[in-house]
Amino acid sequence: MARIVMKFGGTSVADVDRIKHVARKVKTAVEAGDQVAVVVSAMAGVTNQLVDHVRKTAQLYDLREYDAIVASGENVTAGLLAIALQDLGVPARSWQGWQVPVITDGAHGAARIERIETTELRRRLAQGEVAVVAGFQGLEPVRNRISTLGRGGSDTSAVALAAALEADRCDIYTDVDGVYTSDPRVVKGARKLDKITYEEMLEMASLGAKVLQTRSVEMAMKHRVRVQVLSSFEDKPGTLVVDEDEIVEKEVVSGVTLSRDEAKITLRRVPDRPGVAAAIFGPLADASINVDMIVQNTGADSEHTDLTFTVQRGDLGRAVKVLSDNAEHLGHAAMLSDANVVKISVIGVGMRSHAGVAQKMFKTLSEKGINIQVITTSEIKVSVLIAEEYAELALRSLHTAYGLDSV
Amino acid sequence: MARIVMKFGGTSVADVDRIKHVARKVKTAVEAGDQVAVVVSAMAGVTNQLVDHVRKTAQLYDLREYDAIVASGENVTAGLLAIALQDLGVPARSWQGWQVPVITDGAHGAARIERIETTELRRRLAQGEVAVVAGFQGLEPVRNRISTLGRGGSDTSAVALAAALEADRCDIYTDVDGVYTSDPRVVKGARKLDKITYEEMLEMASLGAKVLQTRSVEMAMKHRVRVQVLSSFEDKPGTLVVDEDEIVEKEVVSGVTLSRDEAKITLRRVPDRPGVAAAIFGPLADASINVDMIVQNTGADSEHTDLTFTVQRGDLGRAVKVLSDNAEHLGHAAMLSDANVVKISVIGVGMRSHAGVAQKMFKTLSEKGINIQVITTSEIKVSVLIAEEYAELALRSLHTAYGLDSV
Repeated sequence: MARIVMKFGGTSVADVDRIKHVARKVKTAVEAGDQVAVVVSAMAGVTNQLVDHVRKTAQLYDLREYDAIVASGENVTAGLLAIALQDLGVPARSWQGWQVPVITDGAHGAARIERIETTELRRRLAQGEVAVVAGFQGLEPVRNRISTLGRGGSDTSAVALAAALEADRCDIYTDVDGVYTSDPRVVKGARKLDKITYEEMLEMASLGAKVLQTRSVEMAMKHRVRVQVLSSFEDKPGTLVVDEDEIVEKEVVSGVTLSRDEAKITLRRVPDRPGVAAAIFGPLADASINVDMIVQNTGADSEHTDLTFTVQRGDLGRAVKVLSDNAEHLGHAAMLSDANVVKISVIGVGMRSHAGVAQKMFKTLSEKGINIQVITTSEIKVSVLIAEEYAELALRSLHTAYGLDSV
Repeated sequence: MARIVMKFGGTSVADVDRIKHVARKVKTAVEAGDQVAVVVSAMAGVTNQLVDHVRKTAQLYDLREYDAIVASGENVTAGLLAIALQDLGVPARSWQGWQVPVITDGAHGAARIERIETTELRRRLAQGEVAVVAGFQGLEPVRNRISTLGRGGSDTSAVALAAALEADRCDIYTDVDGVYTSDPRVVKGARKLDKITYEEMLEMASLGAKVLQTRSVEMAMKHRVRVQVLSSFEDKPGTLVVDEDEIVEKEVVSGVTLSRDEAKITLRRVPDRPGVAAAIFGPLADASINVDMIVQNTGADSEHTDLTFTVQRGDLGRAVKVLSDNAEHLGHAAMLSDANVVKISVIGVGMRSHAGVAQKMFKTLSEKGINIQVITTSEIKVSVLIAEEYAELALRSLHTAYGLDSV
């Protein structure tokens, strides 16, 4: 007998029929003898509508009120799923964040879970009652107000609940059936992975494989919660996200990812003196613009340098404006910007013990005539920036080069 | 400086624009120096949609879950109105039932308010903060679950809050601008009343003038809460519902009402023996069918009697079936039913001290050739059942006869 947390996202509970379908999946788990807590999102579209109401009401709004409003979507799903379960003869009750309670800090709109009280939940789970918990929300206890974890926070709710309940597994049901070696829409030979490490999943999550929320993976890694990503529409195992020790045969490279949300800025002939980087990146940080890849090339003379970096594509216009406003201060000769770039990354914990992974990447791209504009590396990842027109070709070529294609 | 409770129903908060309009009305009251608590309903249509979801999920459902689901509609409105008020520079916060808390009994779906904790509300009202309270809901404290007061319960929430806060007035904003002497759509000369007594309002409310929920009037009468019914779309005084002592010049008749939700059943030649009434009305009560007017005529012989009574029109089919199923037991000769009847009532506390009110009614109807089928009376009301085709004629004639027409 295991204790598991099952989480169902917005598309899995989009309407009453899908909620009934979810109830049948939960019933199957209960009949297998498991203790089950379920975390649910709002029905697809509901949260957007509520956010829309808020934005139409006022341009600037109290985030405590925003939280009280948008949290209602999850409450509705939780109640409906409890009813659907009871209708199948499965004892169940719904739990809103303040009822559990899921205690958070006071950062309304993007709160962090501090603690989950589980005494009563554990007692009821042991009696065979399914706990249907509204995701994405908690209680800020000082002022007794509803808080939300920010968009997509139901994944985090589920992992946090699994950690608090010391659950054997946290199953995240979604509209894909697992984590793939690459984007199956682009790479025909992409394979579903049986297992992946937390570290790899973190890189995947932050690089555009939008399967799991980054924060939920961080939390799973911290509390060693075994997470499974699987489809709510199919009855087969998904991908287990686990500790490295659990994976016996580590692949050198687990996946090749593509992020199109990239734009490049180059500053030519920046005076090469101390403090110049701070002068450039300070104003960008003040404008809440995240800078990702950075390379500095020695320029034509020793007193100047060329600086290239990337920002999210949607931030490019603002970034260019911020830098233009500071142009006099920076003293660069010219600014070039390019939104037609993508980032390709190869990811794998096996890299740590295998040399030549980066070299293989460069060689493969070179053979296809693809120019690498920027390179960054981490312990388990190599990323390159290339022209967008080569995106699919690069992804497919690397997938084949690292031997990831399904047979 | 007064302390007032303002209540806005579903059509008054139907969309964001109307919620902003409500915020401006509240701001006006705050600027006049009043302490203001606001009670809101769900946006028009929202509760029906939630109820629909519940019914689609299961035929029989846990009312505790139903309550948790449908209460979310009011929570959304409360948050949005708080934001709209803040946007106008008015300090405000929303309060869900469990936050106040509004303590109710455990009769989920039709809970009764037992107590409202107002210490914190009073403190904040005194500081000039508007309390926006979600109507229709409370907290069942034993199991820490959300309860609802049943459909239309926001009126009751408002009156209960006004009583608990010892408010000077409870203003119920709705889509009509007050209580009329009769239905203005039928009676051209119908006048808006400046004041009406609780007792009269109770009769009006239960007789189809759907302005105020009956329970809210009962509660206002019990706690002597001065209630004003007025339009949220116009800027003028409405009708005050107050204690009889507050009305100096009482009118003999305050209003003439029409209820079309009537149907008549006549049992011919029922054996006239003890227990026969119980044998007839017992099964109807068991089937949750309310019987309203009852008359018993002596029949052709002393051993039989004719019995006529009314039920709600929607219950007629079931009532006939229940009686048919018991036909053998009842021993009547025939059963006649008629759904084409209406109930006309004249209402006024002045009746107590004035004779001839009923007589004037019978005479007026007789002069128009309208046959009276059933009569019932109470201390402040005379009701008659007539054929539906005469409904408008009867209403207009009586309105004129009692001198209620506007000049």
